This record gives sequence, C-alpha cells and structure tokens, in this order.
Amino acid sequence: MREKFDLPDGVIYLDGNSLGPLPRAAKARVERVISEEWAKGLIRSWNTAGWIELPQRVGAAIASIIGAQPDEVIAADSTSVNLFKVLSAALAARPERRVIVSEPDNFPTDLYIAEGVIGQLRAKHELRLTSRVEEALGPDTAVLMLTHVNYRTGAMHDMARLTKLAHDHGALVVWDLSHSAGAVPVDLDAAGADFAVGCGYKFLNGGPGAPAYLYVARRHRQSFTQPLSGWLGHAAPFAFEPAYRPAEGVSRYVCGTPAVLAMSALEEAVNLMRAVDMREVRAKSIALADLFIQLVEERCAGQGLRLVSPREAAKRGSQVSIAHAEGYALMQALIARGVIGDFRPPDIARFGITPLYLRYVDVFDAVEILRDVLATKAWDRAEYKRRAAVT
Amino acid sequence: MREKFDLPDGVIYLDGNSLGPLPRAAKARVERVISEEWAKGLIRSWNTAGWIELPQRVGAAIASIIGAQPDEVIAADSTSVNLFKVLSAALAARPERRVIVSEPDNFPTDLYIAEGVIGQLRAKHELRLTSRVEEALGPDTAVLMLTHVNYRTGAMHDMARLTKLAHDHGALVVWDLSHSAGAVPVDLDAAGADFAVGCGYKFLNGGPGAPAYLYVARRHRQSFTQPLSGWLGHAAPFAFEPAYRPAEGVSRYVCGTPAVLAMSALEEAVNLMRAVDMREVRAKSIALADLFIQLVEERCAGQGLRLVSPREAAKRGSQVSIAHAEGYALMQALIARGVIGDFRPPDIARFGITPLYLRYVDVFDAVEILRDVLATKAWDRAEYKRRAAVT
Repeated sequence: MREKFDLPDGVIYLDGNSLGPLPRAAKARVERVISEEWAKGLIRSWNTAGWIELPQRVGAAIASIIGAQPDEVIAADSTSVNLFKVLSAALAARPERRVIVSEPDNFPTDLYIAEGVIGQLRAKHELRLTSRVEEALGPDTAVLMLTHVNYRTGAMHDMARLTKLAHDHGALVVWDLSHSAGAVPVDLDAAGADFAVGCGYKFLNGGPGAPAYLYVARRHRQSFTQPLSGWLGHAAPFAFEPAYRPAEGVSRYVCGTPAVLAMSALEEAVNLMRAVDMREVRAKSIALADLFIQLVEERCAGQGLRLVSPREAAKRGSQVSIAHAEGYALMQALIARGVIGDFRPPDIARFGITPLYLRYVDVFDAVEILRDVLATKAWDRAEYKRRAAVT
Repeated sequence: MREKFDLPDGVIYLDGNSLGPLPRAAKARVERVISEEWAKGLIRSWNTAGWIELPQRVGAAIASIIGAQPDEVIAADSTSVNLFKVLSAALAARPERRVIVSEPDNFPTDLYIAEGVIGQLRAKHELRLTSRVEEALGPDTAVLMLTHVNYRTGAMHDMARLTKLAHDHGALVVWDLSHSAGAVPVDLDAAGADFAVGCGYKFLNGGPGAPAYLYVARRHRQSFTQPLSGWLGHAAPFAFEPAYRPAEGVSRYVCGTPAVLAMSALEEAVNLMRAVDMREVRAKSIALADLFIQLVEERCAGQGLRLVSPREAAKRGSQVSIAHAEGYALMQALIARGVIGDFRPPDIARFGITPLYLRYVDVFDAVEILRDVLATKAWDRAEYKRRAAVT
C-alpha cells in the first residue's frame, strides 16, 4: 500500500491523523477531472461524468469502511457543517428533551457547533459537559454527542456500549468519527448508531480540506429534515420549485453544489482504503503503536516524557500522545529533523500511526531522532518556541 | 483574455453563467498544490503555503470585484451554507421583527434556506414571497432577501434603490450575487449593502462546486455571530478552547477547514477577473447580448420564440433567456450542435453572455445554428425530450 502514496524523501510522517498524504490515484484523478471533465465536458459533465451523484457515490464508498449501508452515508461540506445538520435533526427528534451531553475534551468544533445549534433553537437547550458521561445521561437527555477517538489523547470510546446506554435512557447518539474511521474498525450499524459525522482529510487521505461525510441510520433517514435545506437536498432540484421538499433518505442532508475537484480526490483515497481489510490495518496499527511506546520508554527514559494515550491497545485509537513540558518546541525540533507530528495544548506531542504507509523501521528511526533531540536539548531554541498559526 | 481559458474546439459556450470554463492558471495552480504543497509540504503547508489564510485571501480578492473592502469578504462553503449564516445573523440583528421579504422567483435554494432558518428559530418568523417587494416592506420586515440578477429571466434589480428602500423601513438586506458578480459591476459599499453571498463557479470561473463567498458590511462585522460557529471561525482555533469565542470581523463567518484544492483554483480564477475593468466587461456584455437579441429576432422570426429577458440593457444582467414551447428539447438539439446553454423550467432556453472569452463571431454562429435547428425542427426527437438529472 505504501507505493500507492506519494511520500517525500527524508520525512517520517506521523501526522496522517491530521492530514493524510497524497494518494497517487488522487493526483491522476484530479488532473483528469480538470483537463477532461471540466475543460472539455464543461457543464455537460454534471450528467456525463456523474458529478451530480458524487455525494451519494463517495458516501457509499465511505459507508463500506464504517459499517454502514451504502444509502446511509453522503459526502458533503465540512465536518462542522455536517454536525450542525445531524445535531439539529437529532434534537428535532427528541422535542421534549433539552440536554446535549458531551465531554469537555471533545474536539472543540463539536462543542462550538452544539453551542451554535442551541443558540438558534426555539426551546432553551443545555450543553452538559462532563468527563463522566454515563452518569450524566437521564430522562432529560436528547442527544449524547461524542467523538469516537479523542483528538488529544487517542483514547477510544466503546461505541456499542455507550450507544446502548444512551438508548436505554431514550436519547439519541451522534458520533464523530474524524479520528477513527480509516484507522480502527468502525461498525455503526452493529452499534445501533443513530447519526455520525467524520472528516475526509485525516485517516481517509482525501486531501487538505477534503469534503466530510455524515451517516444517518436507515430507521431515521425518512424521519427528519435538517435546517441546511439547500437545493441539492431537494426531491427535485432541477424542477426549481419555490418550496422545499426533502429528497429521499440521506440525500436530504446534501445542501449546496458538491465540490467536484475535492470530492474526486476523496473518492480515489477512499477507494484505496476499501481495498484493505480493516482488521489487518488495526492489527498493524496496534503493533506499530505498541512498538513506539516500548521504544520511547526504553530509549528516552528520564527525559521528562509522559505517556498520555492509553497503554492498553484496545482503549486506544491510532495515535500516541506524549506530554513534555516543552511539547511545542520539542515537536518543532522533531519536524526540523524530518519527523513530522503535531502539537496539542497544553503540552502534547502527538504522533499519528497510519498503517497503510508507515513501516516498523520508521518507528525505530523516529524514536532514535526523538532520543537525540531530547538528549541534546535540541528543542531549546527560540525559533522552535515561536508559535505558528497552525500547530 | 480568451487565451487565458482552456476552451474546447467545436463548442460555443453560452453557459458560463452556470459553470465557467477552465482558466489555464487554475489548472497549473491545482497541479502545484497537489504535487508540491500537499505531497511534499504535507501538514506544514497550512503555514508555509498559506493554506490557513485562504478564506480571507480569496475573500479579499473577490471583494475587489464586488465593491467591498478586503476585510468584508471571506470565501467559504457553498452559497446555500453562507446564506444560512448571514440570514441568521441578519435576523438576530432585528429580533423584534418577524418577516423575511423575498420573491417567489428567487433562486430556489435561497427560499429553501430561508425556510430552514425559520424552522429553527425561537420566534415564529414568516417568509413573505411577492413579486412586488416594494409594497411588502413594512415595520415588521426584518430582512429583504433578493438575488441581484434573476437566474431565469436575467432581470437585474436596482441594488442601491432597493437597499435604501429597505433601510428606510428599518430592515436589513441580504443580496445574492451568484448571477451578477463577475459579469456586471457590483458596488456593495456604495449601495450601503448589509450582507451578501455569491457563487464561485459561475461568472467567477472557479470550477465545478467551487467555494462560495459572503460579505458583511464593516459596520456589522463585529456585531453578530452566526450559528455555524465552527472552529476556524474561532478567535484562536489552535488554542482548542472548549467555548466558542468569535474571531474578529468577517473571519467569524468561516466555519470548518477550507477546501484547499478548490479554493486555490478559485483564487486563480478571481485573479484573472481582477485584471480587467468591470466597466469594459459590462460594455462588451451589453453589446454581445444586444447583438444576440437582434439577430435572434431577425433570423428566427416566426419560429415560436419569445424574449424573456428585459430588452433594456440596463435592466438585464449578463444572460439572454428565450422561451420556446419545447425549450428543453430545443436546448438539447443546440448542445448536440455544439451550442451549449441550459434550460430552466417551464420553457426557457438560457444563454449566458461571458465577455472574457465570448466573441461576436460566436454570437453570429450560435444564432445561425439556432435558426437551423428551428427551421428543420431538429429538436423534435425523443432523445432530446428525455430529461437528464441536471438540466
């Protein structure tokens, strides 16, 4: 699989959980879309190149790697926008309840979007943030909103157990798969999930700012509309009717015109992912991460590192997070040496484990460089402490 | 300017008002973004290639062609999603008022999105549709929501006059520039506009499903938040704070991660547009459209055509709409002969006038082909009457 990606020389890439590398097929596809479909086909390509079906077609491809049916997923918009849609639909489905339960350490945009949804609603809703979500669920809970794998720590929730628990309380569940889909097995249907969203540019390798996706369980898909009721979620967009009539099923969650260039790159990336067995991906992910942890503890002992991710593989996604008092500068020093991870406040150096293109030798080499950077205090330079716009 | 576009042989393209053709610079730019910035720069390109500033940078470029200040516009999301943002903000700014005034013939997604916004709001709002908006404005009007140039007829509103009229009633105005920006001079600041949205893939030539844009007048930009409060509209996205704090000014209207590939293509396309004088574009647009109307009336008299667009150039955008009882089949027959326009229900053949790459000879040739298709009833074939998904 590594040969399917265009990886630069001199780099050990441990940030595929933030931006996946370029699949060679995506490059070829985008060039074809631009030179043939856009330049020559022009407006006709909406029909002849199947552009209009991209949200459903790419959604169906993603469905196969998150344990969903093809007609339960669409690709569209950003994760934040899609969360707005499904969270609105979920709240509308529990009109007598007023509480969204989530974690304070959920990815911030999920919390911000929940704030945004609540700010507009007719009734007074509450976003209840607690690190003990099991205890916060009750008869007032409309929605449990969680991210499957935590972006900072890499800790993974038990999706099936929490979904059942929420359902026992009469609540619906919205899962954010941004940090899990494509890296760990996800089975939304088996878990009895209600709604989910996820990101196209992390483990799915769809490219910078790739379209995101959303999932609506079949049993809900005809039940609700969502407020971003744009024309391409209409039952007959090209009839240009003055009033909104939602399309069948999950297609009503499409809003505006699909981003054809970006969606085409994402389709190629997802097709790569579909060609592998997610259980093998998971097995290698665990082996790589266990090795990384073991080597860091052997080779970098006494250097002020602290493992933040769960040690137990079953409770961990596909990243290893390590705290260091100068975590930001440490990561900049590593990047300067070709070991690319990223930093998350307050002090976490984050290393993504991406089995499709990461080798065991990369883990060995990365840890040796980490050891050297720590031993020589190479991180202790002003230029490494100056924060960039994106960390 | 025509040489700046990659136009296929054997085609007269009269649909640049629906999907602009490929700017050669956009192709080169996307290839560079993929091969260099994504493949080699990887996650670093968010800083080193300035990806993170794309919404503001492309917004500033668009600002210069719609009569706005650089810090009044961002590029982001789709037109529908952006309309949801600014319409929500506008309604929040007039909390004591309950009515959105618009036209039944407005582009449908604008009406659908207004429905979606109203469906979520705390108070009971009303979408009042009337073809006589002047008479519908009153003390209960929160927002006048109009599209500058009508997508079906090409009729153009007097932006300054209607904005002033709405303001006289204490209402705010949301303009949709999708069918005007890049084709006719637009001066939002001079008109005293409040909010605007527009499309990147029509006259701006940004590519299929290109990102859209939105405008918020300086006097409003610190006043309101909008409900799609995603992390990249946060004052400090990479601080990962649990609560939303809006960014300064129009940046708070950014939501999720920018679509880098698509945004890069759009930036090149907009930079082409900035190099021309919009008054010259307008003068040629009028000359081409007047010629088109004159030739159609001379050469196709008695063939059942009816001019739908205003005859008076000052009241027309940059398209000519012509009704024919078999408008759909007529357009399919024209497309089969290489004259590409599109169809809008119930009976309109729509011809876009795009001065940057359209020549007078193209107008002559297009009308001769139209004349032939009509005279020979070439449209009267079953295959031309079968409706495609996208018309």
